[in-house]
This record gives sequence, structure tokens and C-alpha cells, in this order.
Amino acid sequence: MTGTAEERYELIARRLQEVLGADIIKAILAEGRTPKCYWGTAPTGKPHVGYFVPLTKIADFLRAGVENSRHAPSDIHAFLDNLKAPLDLVAQRTKYYKRVLVAAFNSIGVPTNNLKFVEGSSYQLTKEYSLDNFRLCSIVNEHDAKRAGAEVVKQVDSPLLSGLLYPGMQALDEQYLGCDFQFGGVDQRKIFIFAEEFLPRLGYAKRAHLMNTMVPGLGGGKMSASDPNSKIDFLDPPEVVRKKIKSAFCEEGNPDNGVLAFVKAVLMPISQLRLERRRGLDGEEMKQATANQFPLASEDAPEDTLFSVVRPEKFGGSLHYKTYQEIEDDFSKKELHPKDLKGAVADAIISLLAPIQGAYKNDPEWQAVTAAGYPDPNTKPEAKKKKEKMYHPPPPGKGPNAHQAKPDAGASLRQPIAEGDMTDNATKGQ
Amino acid sequence: MTGTAEERYELIARRLQEVLGADIIKAILAEGRTPKCYWGTAPTGKPHVGYFVPLTKIADFLRAGVENSRHAPSDIHAFLDNLKAPLDLVAQRTKYYKRVLVAAFNSIGVPTNNLKFVEGSSYQLTKEYSLDNFRLCSIVNEHDAKRAGAEVVKQVDSPLLSGLLYPGMQALDEQYLGCDFQFGGVDQRKIFIFAEEFLPRLGYAKRAHLMNTMVPGLGGGKMSASDPNSKIDFLDPPEVVRKKIKSAFCEEGNPDNGVLAFVKAVLMPISQLRLERRRGLDGEEMKQATANQFPLASEDAPEDTLFSVVRPEKFGGSLHYKTYQEIEDDFSKKELHPKDLKGAVADAIISLLAPIQGAYKNDPEWQAVTAAGYPDPNTKPEAKKKKEKMYHPPPPGKGPNAHQAKPDAGASLRQPIAEGDMTDNATKGQ
Repeated sequence: MTGTAEERYELIARRLQEVLGADIIKAILAEGRTPKCYWGTAPTGKPHVGYFVPLTKIADFLRAGVENSRHAPSDIHAFLDNLKAPLDLVAQRTKYYKRVLVAAFNSIGVPTNNLKFVEGSSYQLTKEYSLDNFRLCSIVNEHDAKRAGAEVVKQVDSPLLSGLLYPGMQALDEQYLGCDFQFGGVDQRKIFIFAEEFLPRLGYAKRAHLMNTMVPGLGGGKMSASDPNSKIDFLDPPEVVRKKIKSAFCEEGNPDNGVLAFVKAVLMPISQLRLERRRGLDGEEMKQATANQFPLASEDAPEDTLFSVVRPEKFGGSLHYKTYQEIEDDFSKKELHPKDLKGAVADAIISLLAPIQGAYKNDPEWQAVTAAGYPDPNTKPEAKKKKEKMYHPPPPGKGPNAHQAKPDAGASLRQPIAEGDMTDNATKGQ
Repeated sequence: MTGTAEERYELIARRLQEVLGADIIKAILAEGRTPKCYWGTAPTGKPHVGYFVPLTKIADFLRAGVENSRHAPSDIHAFLDNLKAPLDLVAQRTKYYKRVLVAAFNSIGVPTNNLKFVEGSSYQLTKEYSLDNFRLCSIVNEHDAKRAGAEVVKQVDSPLLSGLLYPGMQALDEQYLGCDFQFGGVDQRKIFIFAEEFLPRLGYAKRAHLMNTMVPGLGGGKMSASDPNSKIDFLDPPEVVRKKIKSAFCEEGNPDNGVLAFVKAVLMPISQLRLERRRGLDGEEMKQATANQFPLASEDAPEDTLFSVVRPEKFGGSLHYKTYQEIEDDFSKKELHPKDLKGAVADAIISLLAPIQGAYKNDPEWQAVTAAGYPDPNTKPEAKKKKEKMYHPPPPGKGPNAHQAKPDAGASLRQPIAEGDMTDNATKGQ
């Protein structure tokens, strides 16, 4: 932890799309205290490389002296999300999430000894929490809950009650994890607003909310967990990474594409983080990071280069960039060809994934929870639902109650509620 | 317990308005087993004499060998109902409910040693229950919940989430109390149907549902807990009972009035129960009843009289009835004057309340929980809400979210959800 309160706040807030309640954090910093952060995920599908964005921000938080950045794999949420996934499956996925996130943190040089992993079920099934949940339900109406979940819960005429409980439970997380601020994607904004409104009505403190931008998808849309071609998995081998990048939409001279967006949102911040670390800006606590911590620049790059596109001399030689804007400008002027850009991006991603995949290879337990949590890696999790239907015989006399994830819920780190597919059941009732 | 399986079933089902799942009960009886009953109330307002209807049915159940007729004061429901009533207030009301119900059971001659009082909070805050509640919420949609609660939850555009949780929690009660059938007013029908549909989807047994008729109010409508003039409280002193009966609508010759309806629904069954008991039809277990167990007939009444209207000779002398129909016929033919009917009804009610009020007088602890649970007996409980507002400061930026009890939710033993008045708060937001 270095710097004045102002410097620490700047580090906490940089690159964020929005901060609600900055005063709460500034006040804590002004007193020389250490704000506590809560960042939550629901362990449903496998996390993708879009997770690097929040991880990079968490590196900022840690450097700014944010304490106990609590990551809460909300296994109860995941249980609700998966709809009928047995809890032991969710438990395996929770273990998978922990491992992949620790490895990804290490890959970008973030020590994990200051991170607390808290499973939602460790407090969401307690008497105290249950009472608070009931109290909340006695003041939150349907409209409040729907408005809060509008971005992350599929908007249907008749949502599942789990989707209506979701915002309240996420609000209670803040209290039960004892955080000063919650961090998440900007798609969480309405849920954050909800928490700011309702926690004080239960007699609890209003927390600050920090939001990062949404991670772009390679296909030009958003990176979606449910479309394997739009996302790159942390465990995708190099040839798969190259193939996905190669097939991404990236028209020469048109900077509006998912590859450039990924460079801006993911690669440049990581590279900057590494550069700052090499300059010793990250203080003592960063010394524990073990992975390669060079910027995403070639060895012959000028100082301060954040991103290099290695090119043979006959094609104009390598390009070295200190800012994202320079890359985009070159691309727009057709001085950077899509093929070269894609090659450099694929190289960068592969270099980031290498230590993660190395850790996976050396961790039989991680391999075991992967097999248990995601039984057939070649099948989409949705297909697994067939087997899980034993929990949901077609309802007698039921109207349509199909709920599906918004296909484009984006790279929200929380999976949309009601991701399970009940469509099959919906028309089978009497 | 006496009689064949058929006789026992007849006793269980007599006078009920509807039975769902009779086969479930018949099968248990055919095997010589003892069906288990669950009857629930939410300890909100003070129970009124309409409670004699279910209590009389429970006497039938016990005589038919129904075991462990579990009465569950659903204190969590009450907590949700009262909205912001502190739980310790609900705890006092729960104690009040237990005492008044035990005394009322004794008054009509039902031994209470076979009754189990289970507080909802004893299982509704456990880990297992919470998980089941979450599981249920992941398969129940808003439409299902609203339809189920249509009769007992105020239908507003945007109900509170507590109102949506209510049917599911009542369904889970059946599983957690281990009952074979749930008993309640016919206003519970949609909630019962809901339970029959959803418990099996959680892997739990579908229960039978027995419904008694709704208790009429003295004002001609239904007996409403929120209108003190429509109901007679168990602790109303004789002069108050007489005053309320006197002011009840009861037009000469017109049998459509609350007084006759009360005779039919409450007084005749109690009187019949006592007559049967005197004949030894109720088996060994009824010998513990201590209160006066004479039918509501005068001493000079002919055998089998269930209801007497004592009248001076100059006005035609006393009337003695063996069936309700005879009373109604006399009333329609103007052979029974409203004033005489009212006098007899008031006498009967006062005689039923006497042992209850005697028990109250001799029980300082009961008096203490009354004072604590219903702080000002001369003020409607609603007025108390003012003080409780500390739990609910006006919400910042809230739209209207007022929810009030259906004024005419009737003599449902479960109070309507969202009875609390949030109207005051609704317009105070920013």
C-alpha cells in the first residue's frame, strides 16, 4: 500500500465505468483505514478470460490497500441459477472456480493471500440470514425486485421466485461479508442501486459500488458464457485460442470489432499492471507473484511499450504501442492488418493462459473437480439438464413457465438467473 | 378411537365443505394407522370465536384417531404479516395464541395432550428448510404464487415478495411437520392446490387437504379479524358479547344473517360434540376434558336437544331444537323472534367463553403475554405500527408500495399477508 488517500482512490477508481458512493471509500481512505471489497460470482458455467478484467481491477484494489478483497462464489445463487443442478455439482463447480481464479490471479501477478473466498452457503443458510431475507421480502415488492434484476434476469411475464429473491440476496451479501464496497460489471448497476436503497431500511449501512465496463465478445457482441465460440476458456489449449481468434470478426480498417475491444479491455490493463509492477509501484505485497510479469511487449520493444505486434521486416517490422489509442489509430489507417493483430492477440492470450494451464496440469484435485463439476467437457452444460430433469417432472396443470438466460447477458460475472431450460417442460403439462 | 375405517373417515370428513385427497386418508385408515393432521395459524391479531369451528373439527379428528394434530403457530408467517413487528412481539403473540387455543379446546371438551404446538421458526430457519425454500423458489413462478395466494393475499399490482413466498412456505410446512393432511378454511383452497402440485416436484409426498366452511361475521359479511365489531374475542366480557350480538344485523323472518349463520357453523357443532361425548361416543381420551360438557340446551329440554331458546310462557315458552334447520325454519316463519334468538346465542357464547376467561384470570403469565403481545388492548393493533416504524425509515426514491390486508379476507385462520400499513411511507420518499 503506497500513496496518499487521493492516490489510493485514483488507483481504486481508474478505468472503472462508474462509481457510486465514492465518498464512502474516500472517507475510509482519509482516515487511513483499509476499505473492504466484495466481488461475487455464481459458479455456473466455466469462467472465461473476460474475468481478467475484474481480476486486473482487484490487483489495483490490493495495491491501493483494499483489504480482504472478498470473492464470494455464491453457491446458493448458482444453485438457483442451475435450477435443478444438485448441490454437490455446484460444490464441485465452486471448487473449480476457486482454483481457476487463484491461477488466473497468479498469472497476472496478483497474490491471493489477501483474498478470501467465501461460499454463500456458509452464511446464506444461517438463522440470522434467513430472518434478514424474510425481513427484506416483507419490504421489497415484485416491482422493486424486477427492476433490480432487469439486466441480469431474463424479463418474462412470470419470473421464477428465485429471480425475484436474487437482488435481495446479493444485497444481503454486502452485510454478511462485511464489505465497504461491492465491485462488479456495470450490468449489476440496478442490483447495486437496489442494495443501496434496501440495506439501510434493514438498519444496515449503505455500501459503495464500483463498476467495470462489460467485456466484449470475440464475435463482435458481448462475451457470452453460453456461446463457446464467443469466449475463450481459461483452459482452452493454444490451438483452440488461435482458432477462435482467427474466426473472430475483424474487418480491415474497421476498429469496431471484438478483437480490438479485447485488447482495450483486457490486454492493455494487464500489461500496464505488469509494467507498473516492474517499476516497483505495487509495493511489498506484490513480490509474491510468481508468474512471468513482463508487459505484453517483445524483448526489443522500447521502454513503456504495453503491446507489441511482431512482424517480419519485409512487412514493415514490429509495431510497439504505449497506449490503446495508437493501436486503434493504426488499425483504422490500415497500417495494422487484422491478421497481424489477431496473431499478437492470440500470442498474448496464450501467454496469459500458460501458467494457468500449467497449474491445472500439476493439480490432480483440480482435474478431479473439473470432471465432477462439468461432467462432459465436450458437451454444453445445457445438455446435462436432460439428466437433471428427474428433479422436475412436467408440472401438472402448468402454464408456460419457460425461463432462459438472456442470450446476450454479456460477460456478467454473475450468471443470469433461470439459466436452466424449462421450455421442454412448459408445454407438457395437462 | 372407535369404529371401523369407514366410520372414522366419516367422522373426520363430516361437516367439511371439501376434501381433496380423501383416498390418502382412507388408505391410512384402512391400514389401521393414524393419520397426522396439520392445522396452522399465524399469530397476528387476537383469535376470535370463529376459531371454534376448526377446534370442533379437530375434536372430530382426535376422536377418529388422528394423531398429533399439529397446530403450527406460524410465527415466521406472522412476522412477515406484521411486516415490521419485532420478532419478540410475535413471540409474545405466539404464547397468547397457545394459551387461548388450549383454553378454547378445553372449553369445548377437547383434551390438548394429543396436540402438538410447533412454532414455524423452530424449523423455518434451519439449513435444510432454507435449501428447500430456495429449491421451491427455483421452480415456482410469480404466476403460480399469485394464483395460490389469491384468496388470502391482497391482490395488488406489485405484491411484496413475502406474499409470494407465503404459499410455498405453507406447502413446506406439510413436509416439515410430517402431516398426512392439512386442515384449514376453504379460503386456503388455492394454497392447498399449490402444495399438492409442488411438494411432489421437490420429491415430497402429496398431502390430503380438508377444508371447513368460512365462519360468518356478525355484521352479515365475514368475520374479520380487523373489524372488532364483526367478531367476538375469546376474552370479550359478557356485556361486550351481548352488545355485539345485539347490534348484529338480524331482520325478522330473513334467515340470511350472521347470527343464524353463527348458530349453524359454531354453536350446533359444539353442542352436538358435547351430546356425543355425554353418550360416550368419544372414547377414553375425551375423559380428560374438564369444562362443562352439556349441550347448549336448557335443563328442561327434551333428549337430543342441541339448542334451546329460553322464553317466558307468556311469549310461547322455550323452544328446543335438534337440528339447525328447525331453527332456521322457525325464524323464517317468524316463530322465533330475532331478540329471542340473539339472547340465546349470547347466552351460549358467554357460556363457552366463561371457562376460557376463568383460565385467563388464573394465569398471570397469560395476562403478561397479552400485555406484551398486544400492548394496548383498547387500541387496534394497526395503531401500534407507528412505533414500529423505526424499522422502516421512508425509502429513498421509492414509488408507491402500499399493501393492505383485504378488509374482508374473512375468518381465515391465517391472516392475510402484508397486513401492515406501509401507506404512510409510500409517499415520503425522495
